[in-house]
Amino acid sequence: VLGNVLIVGERINATRRRIGEALASRDERLIRREARRQVEAGADYVDVNAGRGAGNEPEELAWLARTVEDEVEAPLCLDSADAEALARALNEAKRPALVNSVNGDPERVARILPLVAGHGASVVALCMEEGGIPETAADRLRVAERLAAAVSGAGIESSRVYFDPCVLAASTSPGQPAAVLEATREIRRAWPGSHVISGLSNVSFGLPLRGLVNRTYLAMMMACGADAFIVDPTAKGTAATLAAAAVLTGRDEYAAGYISAFREGNLA
Amino acid sequence: VLGNVLIVGERINATRRRIGEALASRDERLIRREARRQVEAGADYVDVNAGRGAGNEPEELAWLARTVEDEVEAPLCLDSADAEALARALNEAKRPALVNSVNGDPERVARILPLVAGHGASVVALCMEEGGIPETAADRLRVAERLAAAVSGAGIESSRVYFDPCVLAASTSPGQPAAVLEATREIRRAWPGSHVISGLSNVSFGLPLRGLVNRTYLAMMMACGADAFIVDPTAKGTAATLAAAAVLTGRDEYAAGYISAFREGNLA
Repeated sequence: VLGNVLIVGERINATRRRIGEALASRDERLIRREARRQVEAGADYVDVNAGRGAGNEPEELAWLARTVEDEVEAPLCLDSADAEALARALNEAKRPALVNSVNGDPERVARILPLVAGHGASVVALCMEEGGIPETAADRLRVAERLAAAVSGAGIESSRVYFDPCVLAASTSPGQPAAVLEATREIRRAWPGSHVISGLSNVSFGLPLRGLVNRTYLAMMMACGADAFIVDPTAKGTAATLAAAAVLTGRDEYAAGYISAFREGNLA
Repeated sequence: VLGNVLIVGERINATRRRIGEALASRDERLIRREARRQVEAGADYVDVNAGRGAGNEPEELAWLARTVEDEVEAPLCLDSADAEALARALNEAKRPALVNSVNGDPERVARILPLVAGHGASVVALCMEEGGIPETAADRLRVAERLAAAVSGAGIESSRVYFDPCVLAASTSPGQPAAVLEATREIRRAWPGSHVISGLSNVSFGLPLRGLVNRTYLAMMMACGADAFIVDPTAKGTAATLAAAAVLTGRDEYAAGYISAFREGNLA
């Protein structure tokens, strides 16, 4: 409920050293604690990513999914490039999950969307193709159009689609963050019943004070209509920016949520 | 040069108690110090407002204008509802000033625009009428259209026009900040050679942690194309947000300005 947008807590990701080690040793306590902390900080979904290159991702993702669902009531965001791992984790999941992700690759579309449809799940639709992330907003829109058609063809309601316009690092791709803002506006205009999600921490790669850059971009993305974020909800300043941005986009009328978050000391 | 947008330093405003007293006692030192501090913090223009209801605003605005121009190289933003005060201050000013402001009131248009044109000044064009601030983005656009025609008729180049879409307090007017974001995008689309300026501190009126709300809205306005702000450049966090937003809107390619501001300790 942070900012009246959907928050996916990104911390349980095996590419982070501590999480990778906890996964390898099946350290249930650490994974449970990470899940709990994120939900207490406002996460609506808990992302689980088992991609540590150990060769048994389906089993490991299923273990993460079970462990997290046993600890918290929040549903899972199942984060994998491996269709088999997604299939198995979807079978484990007790609550409708968010599948992260499908992209414009026709082979991936053909494997992932039936799983999403069959499990009543939602899906993150990355606006990228086999060739990589598009340069312009218009190119992202073209991928989104193909994905929207495929999703609809698979019988998935538009309200269960979260388009991710795929932001790149500002430090090395100067025009990209602005192209993503434009793509966000256009996707929201074209598919008002769907969503735009952003895993925005890439944007600050290579810069000092990454939290400042991430928070600033979060506000910008909300101004352009993004209504879901894959972030660390425990990071300093994230909750405060989300609360202020909700007031400023009309998502928090008369600032009731902002003021109560302030009173509870959650904006410091 | 903060954020590669135009910054008008708002601190020398006689409605603030300390400034009103300094103006009443002609305390040149305090006014000079306020001008210097703001320019050192990145102000491109220094706003002067003598509206303390003392009945001699033309003389007092002229005194402020002389004092500030004598201290700093930055040009003035002449801020008054009194056409006579603006006329006199424009006569005093050594450098082309920014006149703050004209609005949709035909009488005001007829008095102010010839002054602006005659002095080679720029002008803030408030998107409001005699009746008050419009509700919707579309209503703001209609006022902007009339103002754009009047400005052009007065022989003022479009590059010297700063449209201000007039934001109201989020706490009492929930839909207004979002309407202003939309108006900003549409004004920039309709008149790409002109500018959008925002005196945005109103937006946080009545809320706790006003600086947080102001900074968040600043980032949102930059995402929507605003390229000028009337702010306190010395306020905590303003410079940091402007620097980050410049990177994220492509105004600071490869983050050169951001990184040097960081190295100089200006983002803390």
